[in-house]
Amino acid sequence: MKKVGKQSYIVENPVAIVNTATIVGPKEKEGPLNKYFDKCIEDEFWGEKTWEKAESKFVKETSNLVITKSGISANQIDFCFAGDLINQCISSSFGLRDLSIPFFGVFGACSTFVESNILASISIDGDFAENVLCCSSSHFCSAEKQFRFPLELGNQRPPSSQWTVTGAGATILSKNGNGPFITTLTPGKIVDMGIKDANNMGAAMATAALDTLVMHFNDTGRTPNYYDAIFTGDLGYVGKDILNELAKSKGFNIASNYNDCGVLIFDKDKQDTHSGGSGCGCCASVFAGYIYQKLLDKEYKKILLIATGALTNSLTTQQGESIPGIAHAISIEV
Amino acid sequence: MKKVGKQSYIVENPVAIVNTATIVGPKEKEGPLNKYFDKCIEDEFWGEKTWEKAESKFVKETSNLVITKSGISANQIDFCFAGDLINQCISSSFGLRDLSIPFFGVFGACSTFVESNILASISIDGDFAENVLCCSSSHFCSAEKQFRFPLELGNQRPPSSQWTVTGAGATILSKNGNGPFITTLTPGKIVDMGIKDANNMGAAMATAALDTLVMHFNDTGRTPNYYDAIFTGDLGYVGKDILNELAKSKGFNIASNYNDCGVLIFDKDKQDTHSGGSGCGCCASVFAGYIYQKLLDKEYKKILLIATGALTNSLTTQQGESIPGIAHAISIEV
Repeated sequence: MKKVGKQSYIVENPVAIVNTATIVGPKEKEGPLNKYFDKCIEDEFWGEKTWEKAESKFVKETSNLVITKSGISANQIDFCFAGDLINQCISSSFGLRDLSIPFFGVFGACSTFVESNILASISIDGDFAENVLCCSSSHFCSAEKQFRFPLELGNQRPPSSQWTVTGAGATILSKNGNGPFITTLTPGKIVDMGIKDANNMGAAMATAALDTLVMHFNDTGRTPNYYDAIFTGDLGYVGKDILNELAKSKGFNIASNYNDCGVLIFDKDKQDTHSGGSGCGCCASVFAGYIYQKLLDKEYKKILLIATGALTNSLTTQQGESIPGIAHAISIEV
Repeated sequence: MKKVGKQSYIVENPVAIVNTATIVGPKEKEGPLNKYFDKCIEDEFWGEKTWEKAESKFVKETSNLVITKSGISANQIDFCFAGDLINQCISSSFGLRDLSIPFFGVFGACSTFVESNILASISIDGDFAENVLCCSSSHFCSAEKQFRFPLELGNQRPPSSQWTVTGAGATILSKNGNGPFITTLTPGKIVDMGIKDANNMGAAMATAALDTLVMHFNDTGRTPNYYDAIFTGDLGYVGKDILNELAKSKGFNIASNYNDCGVLIFDKDKQDTHSGGSGCGCCASVFAGYIYQKLLDKEYKKILLIATGALTNSLTTQQGESIPGIAHAISIEV
């Protein structure tokens, strides 16, 4: 058994992140991480007729790009794990339908990127796969339309709301390679603290992030300073502050080396993005672009990446339900 | 590497299906498999205010029941894999939020049940888990409302349409146990033959089933008569006939030992279910009820279970897209 403690796992055979790719939209291009993305698309439709078709194109092009960058041919890739926010995960299935690689659809809302990489690591370490593709995406326009209001309404957004990232991020994990390596997995439990405000996902997900963070430290015996940096997926400004406070109350002071992908991707003041970025594409693009580069540059040698998801839909909100959260974590070491 | 051929895998350490459970609705109770289900609920709302909440209850109660039946306590279960048809897989996340087991949401449309069991088998054989819970569900009313028309419209259904099963099926897989055992895995690729009729899912999924079936036989060197029985998930009458024909044209005559869960669950003539049952709950309940009992009784000693899924949503149909299909297969031996 590779389990340590209650819900963490040591990856015995190093799983290398051979390469990453990320393609994002115009708003992300204007943001501070601009130079870390492989490609920025000026047009949110990317030449397609609908936002949904455009999101599938982000998935398709990003997956093709990471395959090209990795130097591993598609027929040497054993599995593909992918998911997104659109109903029935169509961005992934339509984006990847031409690829002819055995496909596992996954859904962990905005935690999907790390969920995919955990399952890919398990299949590689367990000797079922040599190379695996992981991809997640989101699109501001398709997500707003589906989860909130038609964009044409020009609705007011409350300060706690987040801006769904338009873009996709992908990794190729492999049994072989020089790293960085995925070394520890802490898959998360569903945590529901009764928060019902669909415009405050950060608060709803922060307790799930806390649960996984505390579990990870307790299981591994590590402390926050074991890591050069700790990142959450898309708690945004509101959720980040809550997690900082909650972690401190549990005896883990993460303030000095903790940041959130949703906080990093946009310039809050200049871009009017309120509490920050969100969506499956947020953690995916910030990791595949910015964080991965910092690992290659050895600026970070050990990081903890905790992707957070709100396991809700617009109907459950209308039916008065609270918002269950989940957070999946992986350690990555150079 | 546990791979055989192009996309099949031998499970080296036997993964035992320790137990199963299934709870279904009133229409399923009236069907020919009645006596194989653990529980049949008379009221499609099951005392809840909405169909979505009722579907979550099917997930919750079926998961609790399989845990009780297995004799394995919830805190000894390492992972849970679950998914369903409702937007953002809420039946699973709301149904399982109280369980406090690390949770992987999966989405393979109606192939979700076998997808879950494949990923669970990989995690057990790879030494990441000792016991894993898998659960999938569907609900006629929540699915019709979401994918087709409001039930109140009383819409006419064409003869090729299928009747979404109301119910959930669950398994507990374990490193230990007396079987039946999951012995071979053949995860499927996305296959899109350009079929656009959302009322003929069987035809859209049949080519995906064919792809996985042929791949499985070619990879393992087996022929159809290696198995006492071959089951597809929910091709229904239309899709079953197509698969029979297509398989024959590829040199695999499966007619004598092949059946479909969607064909088995309802009485076509008496129940007005047209092409048969469908939904994530179809394959899950027929396997967890009927097929598992036949394995325990040693009436079947070797079976091949191929769950099929249509990776589509109502929007893609409106946008003129075709319907990509997928099929995941597992062999189970006593």
